[in-house]
Order: sequence, then structure tokens, then C-alpha cells
Amino acid sequence: MDMIFIELQKNSNMPLYQQIYNQIKQDIIDGKFPVGMKLPSKRQLEDFLGVSQTTIEMAYDQLTAEGFIAAEPRKGYYVQAIEELSYVQPTKNTLSIPTKMLNEPVHYDFSANSIDTEHFPFTAWRKYARDVMDPSNAHLLLLGDPHGDFELRQEIARYLYHSRGVDCVPEQIIVGSGTEQLLPLLIRILGKDAQYAIEDPGYLMTRHVFSENNGQTIPIAVDQEGLDVKALQRTNATIAYVTPSHQFPTGTVLSAARRTALLNWATSNSEFFIIEDDYDSEFRYRGRPIPSLQGMDKGEKVIYLSTFTKSLMPSMRIAYMVLPPRLLETYRQAFIPYSSSVPRIDQHILARFMADGQFSRHLNRMRKIYRQKMYTLTEYLTSYKPIVTFSGDEAGMHILLHIHTDRTEQELLEQALQAGIKIHNLHTYKVIQTRSVPSFLLGFGGLSEDDIRTGVDTLFRVWNIKKATAPTQ
Amino acid sequence: MDMIFIELQKNSNMPLYQQIYNQIKQDIIDGKFPVGMKLPSKRQLEDFLGVSQTTIEMAYDQLTAEGFIAAEPRKGYYVQAIEELSYVQPTKNTLSIPTKMLNEPVHYDFSANSIDTEHFPFTAWRKYARDVMDPSNAHLLLLGDPHGDFELRQEIARYLYHSRGVDCVPEQIIVGSGTEQLLPLLIRILGKDAQYAIEDPGYLMTRHVFSENNGQTIPIAVDQEGLDVKALQRTNATIAYVTPSHQFPTGTVLSAARRTALLNWATSNSEFFIIEDDYDSEFRYRGRPIPSLQGMDKGEKVIYLSTFTKSLMPSMRIAYMVLPPRLLETYRQAFIPYSSSVPRIDQHILARFMADGQFSRHLNRMRKIYRQKMYTLTEYLTSYKPIVTFSGDEAGMHILLHIHTDRTEQELLEQALQAGIKIHNLHTYKVIQTRSVPSFLLGFGGLSEDDIRTGVDTLFRVWNIKKATAPTQ
Repeated sequence: MDMIFIELQKNSNMPLYQQIYNQIKQDIIDGKFPVGMKLPSKRQLEDFLGVSQTTIEMAYDQLTAEGFIAAEPRKGYYVQAIEELSYVQPTKNTLSIPTKMLNEPVHYDFSANSIDTEHFPFTAWRKYARDVMDPSNAHLLLLGDPHGDFELRQEIARYLYHSRGVDCVPEQIIVGSGTEQLLPLLIRILGKDAQYAIEDPGYLMTRHVFSENNGQTIPIAVDQEGLDVKALQRTNATIAYVTPSHQFPTGTVLSAARRTALLNWATSNSEFFIIEDDYDSEFRYRGRPIPSLQGMDKGEKVIYLSTFTKSLMPSMRIAYMVLPPRLLETYRQAFIPYSSSVPRIDQHILARFMADGQFSRHLNRMRKIYRQKMYTLTEYLTSYKPIVTFSGDEAGMHILLHIHTDRTEQELLEQALQAGIKIHNLHTYKVIQTRSVPSFLLGFGGLSEDDIRTGVDTLFRVWNIKKATAPTQ
Repeated sequence: MDMIFIELQKNSNMPLYQQIYNQIKQDIIDGKFPVGMKLPSKRQLEDFLGVSQTTIEMAYDQLTAEGFIAAEPRKGYYVQAIEELSYVQPTKNTLSIPTKMLNEPVHYDFSANSIDTEHFPFTAWRKYARDVMDPSNAHLLLLGDPHGDFELRQEIARYLYHSRGVDCVPEQIIVGSGTEQLLPLLIRILGKDAQYAIEDPGYLMTRHVFSENNGQTIPIAVDQEGLDVKALQRTNATIAYVTPSHQFPTGTVLSAARRTALLNWATSNSEFFIIEDDYDSEFRYRGRPIPSLQGMDKGEKVIYLSTFTKSLMPSMRIAYMVLPPRLLETYRQAFIPYSSSVPRIDQHILARFMADGQFSRHLNRMRKIYRQKMYTLTEYLTSYKPIVTFSGDEAGMHILLHIHTDRTEQELLEQALQAGIKIHNLHTYKVIQTRSVPSFLLGFGGLSEDDIRTGVDTLFRVWNIKKATAPTQ
């Protein structure tokens, strides 16, 4: 037997067996104990170190489990062959790790994706959370229906029917962690040959998802009536992705003529489908909500897509799609091995929140709040006419601002950003860049009425745009 | 038409359609029905066997779904080439099993993915939920860090360092909605030329994800010491996906020699990486937990992956990966437009639960509970020796059961399933089918000790396996 030297610190925090384990392991890694070396028997080491049999056993068991040593029956323990670890200059270094991008401080955030967080019904939400997080619901810890739990899909179906005129049964609904998670699944079942027409200007995210998952997209211009369906018909597109109730970002509504034309286009070929993204239709301030395209569809041609991002909170990550029955079986077969990506407890909190009528109540309340904010914003902008005009003010949480000036959109954008005003320019959302008056999305959902007023003032001061007339006394 | 002989047992427990399905399938596998042979039409078989149209349809549909036969429009059903089948069969089979089985009543669920739901600390969880769901946290309604909120990543880093020897800073951690959501992101940044070696047998889900997102995977055999690294070296693989602490499903530990060999393999080429999936390392019942491979890695070669599925609940959908610093910037650039798919409120509930030491407490408690269940199971199985043996009983929530009998794995599987015992056979997890003693994964996490005992008794009664000796008084 070779020499073995183990130093134990009896009053260390580290258990004795671990000290023994560590030292033998290190000696093996360092090559001090050669391969094939016989270790002292447990009994020998026990006597030698004056520790209990259990201590030695735990150390040897651990070394055996990790393969540093091996027992040969009736012979003893031997050091196993371990390749020396080839040494690579560690580049590991906290400095090389990109830390959070420290952006310029933002004083006013006019992003279109922000919402009002001040009026969220935390008390009600907490109540349903408490009810759901109960031992009587222990089964909710396990995986549920991969398409979303039935309770939630039932509430969504009910809500869609009453509020959006969407005609579906809960079985048609697939719950997912947001549009960006659901779209790739949809793309998969629509097949590799599908060609996607997208609105131009339109959502950056969907354009990104389509090109990442399928390839090229076909941009179709949007005008005052929404997507140009005649232009769509001249393309090879097989799938049209549209936001008919409230086009993003222009805010237009797809006209009735275009709606029927679009549905007829889809019906003309069995491979054609329409994806209707109804992302913020809850918030319409004039007239009744625009009914969904899905509700007009007689040919199982519309895939309806929506989310709770605007109506509840962006960070909850719950979205859903309504599949036409003929796509359901394809979907089911394609994704059998996948679980739902939406936490089940959250699904049930939301289902109860909806079932009790809290969701409708919340929407009614928020509609009033956002309407008031919209009113404040547009009222205030009016005083900057005619240099400043706006459109898309009938719904949603942003408007389109048009600045009639010789300066370019880019110049104005940079001036705003430098002054700590977060704002997005229209060209960002366009594929085909056409000459147009500098335009910006002005989101107001996350701002208080005071901030809307001072934010607009600050923005126009930065842009050196003055009120048309001095305020009358 | 060739001769076809099907024997139906009308008073068997097995549904008629399944008897028809089984016999045709077996005849195809055995080569009794040659490739290209035309099967009788549904109508012919209906008349011939005197069974309903639905019965025949269900059998043919199942055979078609699994690729044993294929329909040619207006001609009939034809036997498919078996060579192709043996290649595709494992995936296809498992894809169809879970859903079909959902319909059968399950008396005992020995699935490996179930957990104990009885001892979940609902009271503590609810407390943190209440604290988080508060107007003072209204900002949590908005989108957070796309990589996961810092508070949670900090707790995960701390936990990984102390419990798993993982060496990382919070900035390296990416939080996602489960392994199945994180892996595709990883695949994207590892590039199109990456070739993935997977353990055989191994996880079905990862194999599925790799082939869906990248193409072919390279199966590498697993033996008593874990992944065969020498076999890996002979392939073109650039990425090795491994479960070194507790190989799924065999339960072996990657030996120290193999660990260094694997790390050296990865270090030999700048494009090589190891994905270490440490899915259930919290539950080890003998000796200390096996330290992570990541902790031994000096060359930024290991991507560490884990989840809260086993340690908390499958339905929460929170997993994470630890990226080597050199991959971080690539990751950040690739996914700039994406938001985190994990609800922010849930991230903060979990972060607080961990920060207060509740997570460690829960793990210690559950370790004792699972250890006791493991003990009960293995004690009980011992009385069925030597026909029944088992392995992989040092950790986790399942063991591998080996049945020393002349019957096939498939026969035993079907008998169990028909009796309402949900169990998975080892071949399901294999890519390359080798001859071996019939083996099954026996998961016990979700069963009470009583159910473990009666479940095992029921299973062996169904299999007609008797205790070796009468119980002593």
C-alpha cells in the first residue's frame, strides 16, 4: 500500500466524511494517487484516522458513486483511470459578461406596449390566487391539458362569443405563453409551403417570427381601409396575417368590403387561411367594438389569435388561438409530446377571475380610464395643430402622430431619445419604405394624465414645435 | 389478396379493435405480411370477422397512424416497408401512446414524471404570492428582463453554487418555460452545423426537440458508467447532450473517468459543447449529491440545464440554463425581440421562496419522503427476486425494473396497460433496439406508500409473477 495522508479538522463545519472524500478526490485528480493504487481498507482507515465506520463508508461510497475509485470484491478499493483534465486558459471572467444594457435614463415612455398598472385589481386577483393555491387543488401541481386547462378555455370561449362574436367551442382553443410562442406552432401545422402575407406597416414581432420560422414574408400595403386585399390577390401568399379590428400600428379598421373580399380570397383555395390577430380590440372608444372576422367566416378559414397582454398585463404571458375544426386534429398530432407552457395555477386564477365577472368589470373600468387618457392626449395635441396632426385615435393605447416639418423622421427620433423620451417612429414598422410625413407611435397606456401633458410638452419643446396659439385666458 | 388470419377472443378484456390491431401489427413485424401486400378492405374485414365498422376503422387508423400500413386513395391499404418502420417506430409509437392511454382508466400510474403533491408547502407558497401580488409591485405587470428577472436568477445562481457546485453569475442564467422551450433557443445559437449526440436510451422529449429543430441526432450507448465517451469520439457529433448526475432513464452516474474524458473531448474543438441536463439531482438517497459537470469545467464548455419540475411542480413551467460566458453575447443578440415566456409574478414568488430558505427546506423534506418511498418500493420488489430485479435505485423518482421471463417487453407492457397500470417500457426510450431483458421504468413519485405496495402486487398479478417465498410469519 502506498502512503496516504489525510488531514482532518475535527472542529470544521465540513463533515468528516466530506473532508476525507475531498482530499482523496483531489489527490486522484492531481495524480498523486496513481491509477491502480490500492486504497487502505475501510477498517484500516477507520483505525488510522480514529473516525467511525460510517464516516469512512460514506466517503468511499461517494468516491465510488462518482467513479474515482472502484471496489474489487474481496480485494479492496482501487484508484480508477481518470484522464487528466486538459487545461484551457479560463476566459471566465465577470467582466466579459455583458451586464444589463444601461440605456439612457427614460423620463417619458411613449412605447405603444405599455399599460396602466395603477388600476389593476390586485385585491381580487390575490383572492383567486389564494383560492387556487390550496391543498384541495394539489392536482394542479401536475401537468394539465397540453392545450390549456378546460376551465380556462371554457371562460375564453364564453368571453369571445359575447364580446367578440367569435364562434367556437372550448376544444378549439389553444392556450399559450404569448403570440410569439403560438405563432411558430401555427406555422408548423400550416406546412413548409405556406407563404405569409403581412401588413405593411405591421407588427415587428410577427414579421420576425414568420421569417425565423418559415422564410420570407410578403408585405402588403395598408391604407385607410386596412389591408389592400387586391394587392394580396396578386401575390403567391397562402396565409394572410391581419389585425382587422384595429390595424397595428395605423389604427385603421378593415372595411366591410375588404372583409368579405378577404374571406372570399381565403375560400378560393383549400390551402389558404387568414390569421386574425385581435390583440387589443377590448379598448374601442367610439361606437361598438368591431366584431371579429372569425364570426363572419363560414368556411373554417380564420384562425383567431388574441392575448391578455393589453387587457390584463403583459407579464402574465397568456395568449390563445382558436383553430378552425379542420386544423385541430393536425395540431393535436403535431404536438402530442409537448406540455402546455402556461403555468396551471395561473390558468386557474384567470379562469376564476373571468367566471366571476371580474374580467368584464375590469375591462369596463379600464376602457373608461384609457378613453380619458386618449381624450387628454388628443385634446392637448390639438393645440399644436396644424404642424402636428394625428390618426388612429378611436381605439387602443396609442395614436399615430404626424409632424409636418422639413426635418426627417430620424432626426426627430434622435432628438427625442437624447432627451430621454422613449418613442418609436413609423418606419421601424415598415418593410417597404415609402416617402411620408415623419410619423411616430405615441403610446399613452402607461402614463398618467399629468405625465401625458408634461410628456407632450417636453417632446415638442425638444422638437422646437410651438403651440399654434397662446392659450386663451 | 393474400390469406389473412385473425383470431378474435370476444370475451377477452382487450377491446376487439386492439386485438385486430395487435395481430396485424405483429404479422407485419414478423414479416408474415410482405411489404406491399394489400390488406382486405375495411368492409371485407367487417363481414369476415363479424364486427362493427367502427372496430375495423379504429384498428386501421391506429395502424396507419403508426405507419405500419398506408392508404392509397381509392385503392386500399398496403403494408409498409419494415426497414423504414424499425427506424421510425420508437418515436411514432411513443407519440401515439400517451394520448391513446389517456382514455383508458388508470388505476396505478407508475409514470416516471409524476411527483408527490401531498407535501407541497401551499401555506408558504401562498404567503409569498400574497406578498408579490401587491400594488407596491405594480411594475411587475409590465414586461421584465427577457432572460428572467434578476432576483430569481440571483437565487438560482446561489442555489446552484451551494447545492450543485455550479460556478456562475446570475447574468449567465436564462430562465424559460421548461427544457422544451429552452432547448430550441440553444439549438438556434449553436448553429445549423451542430450535430447532436444524445444518450441511448434517453429522454424522448429532447430527442424530439433536437430532430424537430435541427435534424438528425446521433444516439450514443449508455452503459454502467454512463455515456460511452469513446463511442462519442468516433462520431461527427459537435454537441453532447448528457444527464451525468443521474442518467435518464437508467439511473447510472457518469463515472469520473468518463467525466474528464467528456470534458477533454469538448475541449479538443472550439465548436464542441456539452449540454448537462441536471433534471433531478436534488434527490439522491445515498452519499452526497453528485457534483455537476459544469463545476469541473475549466474551458467554458458546459451548458448547464435544469428545471423546477421535480423539485417543485411540473405545472409551474420554470426551467433555466447557465450559458458559458462566450455564448452569452450570441444569445443576447439572437433573441433581442423576444420577451421572457415565464410570468413575472411567478418568478418573484419563486425568488422569495428561495431567498427565505423555503426551497432548501422543501428539498430536505421531500428527499426524506422520496427516500422512504424508494425504500418501500425496493424492499417490496426484493420479495419477487430472482424473476424481478431492479437498478437505478440510488436517486430520483423511478427505478428500472427487469423481468427475467420468456415473454417480450411488448407483451408485458400491453398486459399492464390493459389492467389500468400506466407504465413505460425501456425500449420506448431507445433509438437503437438491442436485445435485452424486458425492462420498465417504475416511477413512484406520485404514489403513496400504500399505492406502491398494492400497485406492485397488482402489476405482478397481471404478469403472473409470484413471490419467491411465502412471507415469513
